[in-house]
This record gives sequence, structure tokens and C-alpha cells, in this order.
Amino acid sequence: MKALFFDGALRLKKNGRRPAPGPGEALIRVSMAGICGTDRELLKGYRGFRGIPGHEFIGVVEEAGPARPGLAGKRVVGEINCGCGACPYCAAGLEKHCPERSAVGIAGREGVFAEYVALPEGNLHEVPGSLPDEEAVFTEPLAAAFEVMEQVHVRPAARVLILGDGCLGLLASLAMRGSGADVTLCGRHDAKLSVAAAEGIRTERADEIRRARDYDIVVEATGSELGLEAALAFVRPAGTVVLKSTTAAKTEIDLSRIVVDEIVVVGSRCGPFAPAIDALASGRVRVKGLISAVYPFDEALSAFEKAEEPDTIKVLLDLRK
Amino acid sequence: MKALFFDGALRLKKNGRRPAPGPGEALIRVSMAGICGTDRELLKGYRGFRGIPGHEFIGVVEEAGPARPGLAGKRVVGEINCGCGACPYCAAGLEKHCPERSAVGIAGREGVFAEYVALPEGNLHEVPGSLPDEEAVFTEPLAAAFEVMEQVHVRPAARVLILGDGCLGLLASLAMRGSGADVTLCGRHDAKLSVAAAEGIRTERADEIRRARDYDIVVEATGSELGLEAALAFVRPAGTVVLKSTTAAKTEIDLSRIVVDEIVVVGSRCGPFAPAIDALASGRVRVKGLISAVYPFDEALSAFEKAEEPDTIKVLLDLRK
Repeated sequence: MKALFFDGALRLKKNGRRPAPGPGEALIRVSMAGICGTDRELLKGYRGFRGIPGHEFIGVVEEAGPARPGLAGKRVVGEINCGCGACPYCAAGLEKHCPERSAVGIAGREGVFAEYVALPEGNLHEVPGSLPDEEAVFTEPLAAAFEVMEQVHVRPAARVLILGDGCLGLLASLAMRGSGADVTLCGRHDAKLSVAAAEGIRTERADEIRRARDYDIVVEATGSELGLEAALAFVRPAGTVVLKSTTAAKTEIDLSRIVVDEIVVVGSRCGPFAPAIDALASGRVRVKGLISAVYPFDEALSAFEKAEEPDTIKVLLDLRK
Repeated sequence: MKALFFDGALRLKKNGRRPAPGPGEALIRVSMAGICGTDRELLKGYRGFRGIPGHEFIGVVEEAGPARPGLAGKRVVGEINCGCGACPYCAAGLEKHCPERSAVGIAGREGVFAEYVALPEGNLHEVPGSLPDEEAVFTEPLAAAFEVMEQVHVRPAARVLILGDGCLGLLASLAMRGSGADVTLCGRHDAKLSVAAAEGIRTERADEIRRARDYDIVVEATGSELGLEAALAFVRPAGTVVLKSTTAAKTEIDLSRIVVDEIVVVGSRCGPFAPAIDALASGRVRVKGLISAVYPFDEALSAFEKAEEPDTIKVLLDLRK
């Protein structure tokens, strides 16, 4: 099968070996995949990754196991964390915190920038026929945006500021507006902010926003290790900062602001797929404006170049082409 | 009146002016006061403090205003934050987060290391006659310990680690044990740990404790800017760290642990007086073992020297002597 492979450099291999599903796993033929900021970090050396990257996808189940034979032929998206199945975290449905977990295309498991991928059947979610592939592929990042609302009570009367106009910041603004909250998205790219503005989100330029500590919730999605300090400049006393950025760099911060003003800082990673699929399928969250380009798989290396451009939001790979 | 005054050096003045209570304020004759780590920080230059320090006290109301005339003659303890009374924080009962607040003996308001102090009547809480002065004076720091349980749901099945065997760490261990949780206190001073052990708390030496990320809640009461990093070494994925230490120094931390493991970091400061008084009066929290020494007010400077000794937990000043 064709697959993107990273061993210090990224290459498109034409004769990779199709993965062999383990017990309880399904084999999925990938239809589309999305390039995420984490993929770009991995290709710069983050976590010493080697192998097939990619974790945002939609595909069709080619082979299902005996436990869920009905899966064969279904269009599915898949959660990326695969737990050991035996520890207290897995028992509590928190595979994403299993100490022995693998993560698709990130750690210990081949990713979705390939014609086929193997995944535990329990990770798969069927997608309604009405939801096109190029929207369904946003399920994983939108789930990460919904995770904020799993962790923090976003009241309808809350004032929310989202820092960062990348894909995650945009999706967080779209997801959180559904709670009724007063949501502002702050970023540095007019082209990206205009996508949110077109959906009715209030937007602010990072270099022009009024600096005041009066937001109830600040979601830090800047992708920078400086994001926490920026968030602390906007959150009100007794307010909440949600940290979304994973960066390798250590950061110097003044913890006394957190203590004196009783700020709550919430680390936030992967989220629930069901509400994300529902929001996409119902049209409550519209993501078409976030698609910067779609590349056939043979042009994947060009797609990665496109993903590095400042005004790019999301680049998709079409594996069927 | 006699008062301790700090203007770069700490002096005992014999002829200070008695404070004049403002509208809605009562005049209190101070019976006993406690020396706190924050006082010691202020005397080292923290926040550029000048004036009469001290914020832990028990006293007797000498003059009450027309709104609460019944207060006169009552034994009281007092909350330390004085709000503007007009902002949204004050309206919500969150005077401690009022942007215009003063804080007794810390910022914008004279403290309790004096024969008399003026305080808003709304800050005062009457103390039951059965509760001796030398225990009632622990109300303020015990309230700060209870604040952890105001902010974080401490489940009876939770595993709690408290880092730091100073007064606040000890009080947090005593307060949180009441929730039914499995509480361990970790510190560097055998003499202090033995006080907790005598109350049935499990204790660990900081240099001997098993390093494993398996505590649901870690309370950081080390007084050091390195406390957060230490706490992150013990908290489990999806667990909670409560930050209690205010230090002037900035800290380098690896935020990706917080994000990837979805840790919640909660800044925590002053707390509710009513449950603290109730816990002291009922004997559910016993603090006699935390009293390292009681000094007559004329020997206050010696009391501050005693407070700096490594095995000292709490030094009290007796203002009636």
C-alpha cells in the first residue's frame, strides 16, 4: 500500500506493507486524512517519532472482527488513544490516560497517512451518510475542542476568550458558542479570523485587543509555550484558563498570579467523538470554511508545504486519488 | 497604643495612634495574634510593605457601629480582605477578589500586631466561649486550608498528598482528613511531621517518599516556587494540584505534562471562616500541638526570631501581656 513514512525525512512509499489487525481490531481503508499541528511538530523532531504519522481521518471498514461483524463496509472515524484494556484508567473509559496506551500516528502505533490503518473496533464511530468525508475528517479536532466543555462548565452568561486562530482555536470558538457563551476569538491572521467572523464569532487582532482581566474562561490554543502567560493577562480573578498547546519548551511563569487570584488552570487534550459527529452532521458546527486545500495523496509532500503557510488552516489529503 | 511597625526594620512602638474606625467598622482590642509565613515574607521585602503587619488574630470588640451594636464586648476573629462594596466581586460575596480591596496587615490597611485594630463589621465572626484564644487564633489559616475543599471536590475515596509540613500543610492535612480521604503529609521536618502523626495522619519524609504519579489530589504548601514541579511528580493523570504558595520568584515548568495528562491546577488563597471556627470549637481539628511558643507582646522581636527556626510551626503573640 501507499504510505507516508518519516525516519528523519518524510517520504511517500509506494510498497508499504498493509497493517495486520490484531485481536479486536478492524482494518480500515482511509478515505481522507487531515494534517494537524501535532503532525508538523512530530516531523520537526517532537517525541522522536518514527513511522507513519497522521491521526485525523475518515475511512471505510474493510475487515471487522467477530465482535462487531456489522462494522464491515461502514464509514467510520476513530479515536486515537488505544489503552491496555486492563488498568483502572481503561476500566473507567479513560483509555487516553492509560499509562500503556499507544496513540495513532503519534506513539507506538502507525498512523493514517496510509491507504490502510488498523484500529481497535471500540475506537470506531460510524458516521451518518449525510456527512461528507471532508467534514467528517474534522471529528477528531472538533472532539478536542468539545473536551473544553467536558472539563469546564461553560455557562451561557460566561465571557470566553480563545487565544489562537489556528484550526483548534477556530473549532473551539465554534463549539463553545453553542453553549450560549459570549465568545471572542483572538489571533494574528486576518484570513483565519475572517472564517470565524463569517460564522458570527466576535474576533480581535492580538496586537489590538484591549488588555483587561475580565474573561471568565480563556482557552489557550496558541501552540506556543508563551500561551499561558498571555492567557493569565486576560482571565479574571477566580476565572479559568484551559491549556491546549503542547510544546517541548519549558516556560517561566509567575505562579503567584494563579494563587492570589485563585485561577484554575486546566490541561486539555483529546475529547468525546459523539458530540463532535453530531455537531458536524446537524450543521451546528460548520467546518467547510476551515479547509484551505485538498491534495491527492500522491502530492502529500506538497500538502505538508502548504500546511506550513501562515494563512493555512487545514490541509486535507484525499487517499482515494 | 503599642504596635509593631515595619519601615525596613521591625520596631515595637509604645506610643502608636489608636486606629479610628471608618463607617461600618468596629474597633477591636487584640487579645492574641499569630505569626504567619506571609508576615515573614513581608518583613523580607515582599510587596514593599510598610506599616503594622499581622492578620491572624482573636480580639474583643471595643466599639461597634450603629449597624451591629450587639457586637460590642464580643470575642471575634476577622476575615482579612476588605472590599470596595460596590464591584461585581463584592456583590457576589467575593471581597477577596475585589480589585480595590485592602488586606489587613498586608496591603493598604494596618494589621493586628497592635493593641487595637479597625475592621469592617461584616468581616467579624463571633467565637464560641468554649474556644480558647490560643486555638481561635488559628481560624484564619485553617480557613485557608478549608478553601481547598471549597474549590475542589475531595471525595472520601480520594488519595491526597500534601507537600509541606509548615503550619498550612499541617492544617490542610487535619482539615482534609475530615472529608474521609486518604491523606498523606510529606515534609522535611521530623518534629513537624510528628505533630500530624499524633493526629493519625500518615506522614512521609520528602527524601524517602516513593515517587509515583498516583495521587488524585496534591496540595502544594511548600512555600517554594519549586512546589508545582514537585506536585506534578506525584499527581495522577486527570488529577488535581492545588497551589497554596505565593512566592515572588518566577518558575520554569514543563506545561506539556499538564496538557497531555489533563491536570487541573487550582490557585488557592483565603477561605471560609465559619467551617474553620466550627471545626476548632467542636474539636474536629485540634491545633494545640501546632503552637511552638507564646510570647508576651513586649518580646515580639524575639517571637519573630523564634518563628524563623526550622522546627517552629506557629508562634503566638499575647497582646494582653
